[in-house]
Amino acid sequence: MAGRRAGAPDTKTEILAAARAEFATKGYDGTSMRAVARAAGVDPAMIHHYFDGKHGLFLTALKVPFDPRPELERVMDGPRDQLGCRLVSLVLRLWDDPKRQELLLAMMRSGITTTEGTQLIKDGLLRTVMAEVAQQAQIEDAATRMPLVLTQTGGLILTRYILRIEPIASMSADDLVAIYGPIVQRFLEGDL
Amino acid sequence: MAGRRAGAPDTKTEILAAARAEFATKGYDGTSMRAVARAAGVDPAMIHHYFDGKHGLFLTALKVPFDPRPELERVMDGPRDQLGCRLVSLVLRLWDDPKRQELLLAMMRSGITTTEGTQLIKDGLLRTVMAEVAQQAQIEDAATRMPLVLTQTGGLILTRYILRIEPIASMSADDLVAIYGPIVQRFLEGDL
Repeated sequence: MAGRRAGAPDTKTEILAAARAEFATKGYDGTSMRAVARAAGVDPAMIHHYFDGKHGLFLTALKVPFDPRPELERVMDGPRDQLGCRLVSLVLRLWDDPKRQELLLAMMRSGITTTEGTQLIKDGLLRTVMAEVAQQAQIEDAATRMPLVLTQTGGLILTRYILRIEPIASMSADDLVAIYGPIVQRFLEGDL
Repeated sequence: MAGRRAGAPDTKTEILAAARAEFATKGYDGTSMRAVARAAGVDPAMIHHYFDGKHGLFLTALKVPFDPRPELERVMDGPRDQLGCRLVSLVLRLWDDPKRQELLLAMMRSGITTTEGTQLIKDGLLRTVMAEVAQQAQIEDAATRMPLVLTQTGGLILTRYILRIEPIASMSADDLVAIYGPIVQRFLEGDL
């Protein structure tokens, strides 16, 4: 692979795949651009050519399993008064997927322990997923309501996937959607 | 201080004060028993005499700012249908206190990034504060309901104090109690 022509169409894809694997196993701080380059079989300079540093690479790598567009179509598709349920369902679907979960856990750990990571979560999560939901669903007063939604999904993630506290850790997605969907729905467009 | 008589009544207090300062500034993993002993002016053996290892020291050090009994009296004191509000209010009061916040942040960071820390949060938080609330308030089906309560307080802590996402980070405690109190109340004794 090392001999592949620089800038070949799949170079960027190879780098992203390698970056996802590195970030997932070693976390944000433990991942070096050099290790990603080696795993992808490219020169480190090639990563800097395509991505805006480690942050940029991390964000872009995160966006792939997170790519909100196809997922958001499913969130938007259905009765308006079930929007909260579909949003909770999306969060659980993403996190219940073992491959994504490893990456998401790495992101959360970095987001909680480092200033850079916190900024990445704020930028990544709020400016992509949450802002996209708010815009597509035309949520009024989204600047207040989406952070409230985040307390619900964040608390659920913390309890179910990070602390793994029972019975939350083992409950079915359906049961959790039934509990948290209506709360999120009220935060999205009910009285506060 | 190093010449103080071993086992003097305030030795344990000195060790706990030093431990709290160390854990708060360096986190669980960055704190050594040796450094705590040095800061407290005692021999490391003295710490092992009083506490069950680093875990025991951490838990005991945590229990001081957290000591649930006097705080819980205030939570129990009042109308039953406002219990959720008073519980959210307690969480905010503990976390809004800058000195406690540093220590609590250290605990959360360790709880999220290390297996040991996760266990400490589960043991410390669930078996002391949450279990105490459940017992004193005679919450039915507490094993399910208290973890649900934890998703609310955990999500709030994550958003307000760790990620510091606005407007949650700057909202008044009263506003947050008005929003989350009724949700916690329903989790404590409403229909699920």
